[in-house]
Amino acid sequence: MAGPVAGPPVTIKVAAICGSLRKASYNRGLIRAAIEISKEEIDGMEAEYIEISSLPMINPDLEVDGIYPPEVEDFRRKILRADSCIFASPDYNYSIAPPLKNALDWGSRPPNVWGGKIAAALSAVGGGRRAQYHLRQIGVFLDLHFINKPEFYLNAHRPPGKFNDDGDLVDFKTKDKLKEVLVSLHTFTLRLHGNC
Amino acid sequence: MAGPVAGPPVTIKVAAICGSLRKASYNRGLIRAAIEISKEEIDGMEAEYIEISSLPMINPDLEVDGIYPPEVEDFRRKILRADSCIFASPDYNYSIAPPLKNALDWGSRPPNVWGGKIAAALSAVGGGRRAQYHLRQIGVFLDLHFINKPEFYLNAHRPPGKFNDDGDLVDFKTKDKLKEVLVSLHTFTLRLHGNC
Amino acid sequence: MAGPVAGPPVTIKVAAICGSLRKASYNRGLIRAAIEISKEEIDGMEAEYIEISSLPMINPDLEVDGIYPPEVEDFRRKILRADSCIFASPDYNYSIAPPLKNALDWGSRPPNVWGGKIAAALSAVGGGRRAQYHLRQIGVFLDLHFINKPEFYLNAHRPPGKFNDDGDLVDFKTKDKLKEVLVSLHTFTLRLHGNC
Amino acid sequence: MAGPVAGPPVTIKVAAICGSLRKASYNRGLIRAAIEISKEEIDGMEAEYIEISSLPMINPDLEVDGIYPPEVEDFRRKILRADSCIFASPDYNYSIAPPLKNALDWGSRPPNVWGGKIAAALSAVGGGRRAQYHLRQIGVFLDLHFINKPEFYLNAHRPPGKFNDDGDLVDFKTKDKLKEVLVSLHTFTLRLHGNC
Repeated sequence: MAGPVAGPPVTIKVAAICGSLRKASYNRGLIRAAIEISKEEIDGMEAEYIEISSLPMINPDLEVDGIYPPEVEDFRRKILRADSCIFASPDYNYSIAPPLKNALDWGSRPPNVWGGKIAAALSAVGGGRRAQYHLRQIGVFLDLHFINKPEFYLNAHRPPGKFNDDGDLVDFKTKDKLKEVLVSLHTFTLRLHGNC
Repeated sequence: MAGPVAGPPVTIKVAAICGSLRKASYNRGLIRAAIEISKEEIDGMEAEYIEISSLPMINPDLEVDGIYPPEVEDFRRKILRADSCIFASPDYNYSIAPPLKNALDWGSRPPNVWGGKIAAALSAVGGGRRAQYHLRQIGVFLDLHFINKPEFYLNAHRPPGKFNDDGDLVDFKTKDKLKEVLVSLHTFTLRLHGNC
Repeated sequence: MAGPVAGPPVTIKVAAICGSLRKASYNRGLIRAAIEISKEEIDGMEAEYIEISSLPMINPDLEVDGIYPPEVEDFRRKILRADSCIFASPDYNYSIAPPLKNALDWGSRPPNVWGGKIAAALSAVGGGRRAQYHLRQIGVFLDLHFINKPEFYLNAHRPPGKFNDDGDLVDFKTKDKLKEVLVSLHTFTLRLHGNC
Repeated sequence: MAGPVAGPPVTIKVAAICGSLRKASYNRGLIRAAIEISKEEIDGMEAEYIEISSLPMINPDLEVDGIYPPEVEDFRRKILRADSCIFASPDYNYSIAPPLKNALDWGSRPPNVWGGKIAAALSAVGGGRRAQYHLRQIGVFLDLHFINKPEFYLNAHRPPGKFNDDGDLVDFKTKDKLKEVLVSLHTFTLRLHGNC
């Protein structure tokens, strides 16, 4: 908690996760943009891309003597180091994408690595709202504190195009909206972690 | 925000709302217990019962020149004064009780009086979980920050009885659980409001 | 159940309910359009407007000796006569509008008058999706069978205008979409009621 | 649709899916019991266990020229043959288990193999309700018609034990409840498919 003497500026670490396994995923494009904006435009915030594609499908039988498979252990260590999380994910059939749910579930195995972190959700493709409300309900059990606002929904398939041929976000308005989410995440993390 | 010199202890004001209109409502019993526990066992927390039974059914046509009906204006003023909210409500048909939703909706009329407050939900009767998840989704738009834990569900109809004939909570274990919710609300409010 | 000899054509009765109390409600405009389309364009389907504005706020204490207040009794009788229901309702703060929830809850009091009916939901104003998913969850307990498709969401505030100055639906494309919902409701009701 | 002459009795085919990959899964025990009850106690209903453990994690990039990986094609063919589905699944962190969501999503790839089927959900372990409501929302998009009642929740970890050491359901009361679900699924399938 904040003491009487101001310490050095705190840098918040953000775990940035894409819920889609597609190579050309727009959601991964959002994650790249979020990492870049954090680095270049927000003091005291550092986002790291966390790969989830190598996680095995969740199966508690894979836990042996309290040890999870190496990819899972590695993933869990990375999440533990973070103060906050960004999830960018498609909505599949009105709910959460399996790769993201799988990562959340592996992280929740005892001891839960998500507890007390601050979180924000992004959706690159129309319809993401439904998945985001399911994600927020999951967060209650994981003890993730989602920021309320701004909510971020994009409809990447609706013209004009917001990503270039490399899948990078190039639309300025969308970048501004994304920055607002990141600033809100930053502020909320500082408030909740007592660094005021 | 916290400065270098510690100020006098802060007292958090809590608006305590019962979602049922029944006279003998167990949820109102929970609210009375929460008010008493706040007063007698938690330093720096004061809960006030906010009546919602006189609010008219929500109808935006009742707003004239930016003025709401007197009962609504009065209700909104009371919410504005609070730092936090407790909602104790039945689950009707797998969702939120109309009197509570009505109060939330009147408070959300511009300018939204709920924004930035911390909240906790209580359910006295089995099944309340479903209503609580709907309530949490509503909180995203209202910008209410619900505590994640502990969640509080009671099954008042399952023996042994937890309320006496006056509808007052008399079960010690349940009182302890209720106190844990209030302490969590207190802590979370202090953290988010920067009084660390 | 269908026997070997075809009987006279069956007429399905639909209870049409608007979840908003506003005079100029677009959702009420949708309901009027649905009633008209049923009458003029769908053989064997008759929709009746069911007023809910006079229902008192739900309070089980108002039930005396198994008798509900007269407005409630009247409302319940009308629902009992229907085979199917249409709900057109705004989304207030990411969930169901209190007047509609209130009507659903009064109808659910024992004996539940909704059981086994077929239902469809309409939203005239953007955001209605969230309320519709809450409504569907409520339907599980009430034993309402909602059609899956087509889902109907309108964004009446987005130009070009779809209603005239009297609040009547005048947009042809929207009327066609609305008719598709009604045809789906008609078909599903016939299938479930065994009149094949 | 039913004609004037009664044909031979119809046998409904049910695809039975377990959402957990654990060997000793109680949910798989429920599925085995459901298959046995269907065979021995319900005329005209045949349930087949559909394995989902070999499906790759969903990734639309794995679709090449409209062809899915062999395990996916095989799975989709089996679902296509069924009239109805039973899903028995754990609740992980207040939502659906990834293996089940993954199977649902693969089946939804164009052309959707779930459309128009009737479905029922089972939960062997406490808390399943939350996952079941998410599952029902997914069903709206997949065009699955879930039965409303009875809902089936078991708390297998609460004594007395309901499964034997082989993970087989041995509790008579629970078997009776399970049979009620299957009879409801059978009836609803016949009604919706017009075989009345």
